[in-house]
Amino acid sequence: MREDNVIREEDYVLIVLDDKRRWIVKVRAGGELHTHKGIIKFDDLLGQEFGTSVKSSGDRQLIVFKPTIADMSLLKMIRSTQIVYPKDSALIVIQCGIGPGSKVVEAGTGSGSLTSMLANFVRPTGRVYSYEARKEFLDAAKKNLELAGVSEWIEIKNADIIQGIEEKDVDAVVLDLATPWLAVQLAWEALKGGGVLTSYSPTIEQTQKTVKEASKENLFGDIQTYECFVRKILVREGKTRPETFMVGHTGYMTFARKLIKKT
Amino acid sequence: MREDNVIREEDYVLIVLDDKRRWIVKVRAGGELHTHKGIIKFDDLLGQEFGTSVKSSGDRQLIVFKPTIADMSLLKMIRSTQIVYPKDSALIVIQCGIGPGSKVVEAGTGSGSLTSMLANFVRPTGRVYSYEARKEFLDAAKKNLELAGVSEWIEIKNADIIQGIEEKDVDAVVLDLATPWLAVQLAWEALKGGGVLTSYSPTIEQTQKTVKEASKENLFGDIQTYECFVRKILVREGKTRPETFMVGHTGYMTFARKLIKKT
Amino acid sequence: MREDNVIREEDYVLIVLDDKRRWIVKVRAGGELHTHKGIIKFDDLLGQEFGTSVKSSGDRQLIVFKPTIADMSLLKMIRSTQIVYPKDSALIVIQCGIGPGSKVVEAGTGSGSLTSMLANFVRPTGRVYSYEARKEFLDAAKKNLELAGVSEWIEIKNADIIQGIEEKDVDAVVLDLATPWLAVQLAWEALKGGGVLTSYSPTIEQTQKTVKEASKENLFGDIQTYECFVRKILVREGKTRPETFMVGHTGYMTFARKLIKKT
Amino acid sequence: MREDNVIREEDYVLIVLDDKRRWIVKVRAGGELHTHKGIIKFDDLLGQEFGTSVKSSGDRQLIVFKPTIADMSLLKMIRSTQIVYPKDSALIVIQCGIGPGSKVVEAGTGSGSLTSMLANFVRPTGRVYSYEARKEFLDAAKKNLELAGVSEWIEIKNADIIQGIEEKDVDAVVLDLATPWLAVQLAWEALKGGGVLTSYSPTIEQTQKTVKEASKENLFGDIQTYECFVRKILVREGKTRPETFMVGHTGYMTFARKLIKKT
Repeated sequence: MREDNVIREEDYVLIVLDDKRRWIVKVRAGGELHTHKGIIKFDDLLGQEFGTSVKSSGDRQLIVFKPTIADMSLLKMIRSTQIVYPKDSALIVIQCGIGPGSKVVEAGTGSGSLTSMLANFVRPTGRVYSYEARKEFLDAAKKNLELAGVSEWIEIKNADIIQGIEEKDVDAVVLDLATPWLAVQLAWEALKGGGVLTSYSPTIEQTQKTVKEASKENLFGDIQTYECFVRKILVREGKTRPETFMVGHTGYMTFARKLIKKT
Repeated sequence: MREDNVIREEDYVLIVLDDKRRWIVKVRAGGELHTHKGIIKFDDLLGQEFGTSVKSSGDRQLIVFKPTIADMSLLKMIRSTQIVYPKDSALIVIQCGIGPGSKVVEAGTGSGSLTSMLANFVRPTGRVYSYEARKEFLDAAKKNLELAGVSEWIEIKNADIIQGIEEKDVDAVVLDLATPWLAVQLAWEALKGGGVLTSYSPTIEQTQKTVKEASKENLFGDIQTYECFVRKILVREGKTRPETFMVGHTGYMTFARKLIKKT
Repeated sequence: MREDNVIREEDYVLIVLDDKRRWIVKVRAGGELHTHKGIIKFDDLLGQEFGTSVKSSGDRQLIVFKPTIADMSLLKMIRSTQIVYPKDSALIVIQCGIGPGSKVVEAGTGSGSLTSMLANFVRPTGRVYSYEARKEFLDAAKKNLELAGVSEWIEIKNADIIQGIEEKDVDAVVLDLATPWLAVQLAWEALKGGGVLTSYSPTIEQTQKTVKEASKENLFGDIQTYECFVRKILVREGKTRPETFMVGHTGYMTFARKLIKKT
Repeated sequence: MREDNVIREEDYVLIVLDDKRRWIVKVRAGGELHTHKGIIKFDDLLGQEFGTSVKSSGDRQLIVFKPTIADMSLLKMIRSTQIVYPKDSALIVIQCGIGPGSKVVEAGTGSGSLTSMLANFVRPTGRVYSYEARKEFLDAAKKNLELAGVSEWIEIKNADIIQGIEEKDVDAVVLDLATPWLAVQLAWEALKGGGVLTSYSPTIEQTQKTVKEASKENLFGDIQTYECFVRKILVREGKTRPETFMVGHTGYMTFARKLIKKT
């Protein structure tokens, strides 16, 4: 058993009854989780390996995992704003070429779901600079980043990115803003040559304005916009089928690479 | 200008004419890229920052970027087997909770496209153990991993994973095999408690057999299967529309978490 | 104003407040529709042309249309079984080559949603023979077909299609059964040469068994299976976007054409 | 054997080798179809029932069907303009509430693929009035409608719909134009109360302008926009999977119902 895989006090655990009924809770000696299928005593979990199963007082089997950042963002983070779904975060990370050591500027922080994903992948030597103008979101965002365990790699700035980006020569600028087009010129200035600007927007008009702005004066090249769908397949013996309802839209993702101006 | 962002001899560069016409080449002094839109002289690139543009002898503007691993896998890697698309690799990485330091077992290596993505995200302290039984694919795979610049974090094993997994307590096992169900029990043995088994398969029958095997004797829990679609949107002033053709299917992705047996 | 476009006593009308809040009711002198946005008096509708708007007692504008069969099946029909969505009915009608004069066998009738669509398009000289073994569904189905106004072109049979099909030389056989594969041989016998067998099933296993059965002994050729998705786009000035949730799966549709055996 | 199901001289037949290799030809005594899999002699087909199979001179089995209108539009119609796919025609027919007896105005005729579908479903007592301003398309369109066998129910008008619609009190107006928004007011005048305006456009900007125009001054209500995807599933024993490539976009379909102005 790996030392780092044992359930200890203060750990967050993901407790799964089924697809829809799942909770993330912090384990404390003497504590309990109350579900409509009965009570789970945390003392039954302490010292066990993650992946263990536990019986509720109502005699239902539940299983206990270490939550991933995706689990955290879907189940535990305070949603003061619309979160970015893991399927979209994942595509953004890959398309931006983000990896350990990357320097990334992001705005706005919002609930911090995308911020936490970016931070996870720039570890241990990179850094995420996350701008958030709306003071009222900062506390929740900070709590969420603590939950995800990645605060160390993030610098949150209570500033409107449209007022300026302090960083230079960054690898990527990721915008999740109501008016991303207003930050395009600033993103150009902050990026290294060939660095990737990403904009994530729910509406087509935001996307159109951002692409138009990025195309101006040869600021950016290789501009591409995508949408990403994920459908769940219910694999059940003799009755395999896709799930009836799915998320049909989250946001459009635009990727553009900074062009160097010839002097 | 960042020192690590200058085009130098032996660098791979991505040269983009448009969406469909793009090449990755290794820059050598005195060398040239011949396209049907004219010739590009590498001497014009050396010492420039990535993101620079260059004129071909046919007077066409092309732009020059540093290729990401996604670019490499789509454009440059030798395809001795079907590659795993970046959209799917990205989802696998996120759903498995892979990040810096993760220990991941993979099989089969194939062309190495998924291997290179996994390796990119376990850097700098993690490791990918990649099993490939078919000797004839190994050379191409190794070349591809060199291209991606991640060989250092990968141990390729010329062995059939179905014969056994040597690693223990790993964070994730990722299967891209014709018969993934045959490796499910071994994956269970290799994983840490709660560790994630992923299987990526083009057909529903492979998926059904794998889910069935993973469900047996409570080996795995929280088993979920997804498919992922990415559609390109052509954002053009006054005529914005999705692209006519899209990839409608690559593979089903199954995720399952190892359950600890109570003793 | 067309005579047949005036709202009269006993007419069904579709009353629309918005996308989600819409009702189909039968108009009777002195009657009322009670909504949470106020009351609508039917006397205000009688003698008006369809397409008229009406104010509720709560001062909300509602609009009044003549319901189509699609409206009826989505809003008014009693759902004793899962209905077939208009998007799927439409594809079935087109792929089967159904039109005025077609002779179609269907099973099971279920709620009659698909039956009513088929009947609508075989009018005025064709006929739908609809088999339903489960007596408890017949009353609701008959009511639904009355609602759709197409009963005249339908013969409902309280019989299990698996026990035999009486009709011969029909243009199409449409199966919406739990076990469609059991009716394939009988469908072959009932169809004219080249006639189309359609099977509509939620699960992949039903589809696999049906395709396998239809392929046997060269019973059917040109066998094709499809799934159909419809996504709503919210076109709103400055904030156009697809709807967040969509129906991700209803059923797979298999089409096969009867082969004539050489003697 | 049904009398109307026998292959006779001058009949069009659909000859199928497999999914991709299929031809529609007119049968003439003494004639032949030359394929790369050998020759088919039409004399072998005459007098046979549709659904028959035939051996080519290269000893390959081919099957012979009566083409549906969908087959005709996909395989045989001259494509002087982009055709409307059957999946979209089907949805338009259903959403407009079109059926036997409907009076439908359409513009532009284009290649006539959508026109033929509309005509098929208004038979035998309805009528399609199809406007086409571009004289150069008329001959091909007329030939295509002959092929589909529905000319009798169509009146083709060599006129620009934007110059005026002569018909009144029609059930539906279907626009497949570069500038549909210019015909919205005219469509309103031509429709009966509650009648359906449909616009089919490849771009989002056309859709936005049309929705905006239809919403003006309460011309239309219950305005809805959809897109429709159809994916083929390859059901093969032990290796069932969706097809790799699919059509990811054809056009957006907007439906709006005419509101009656209160006087």
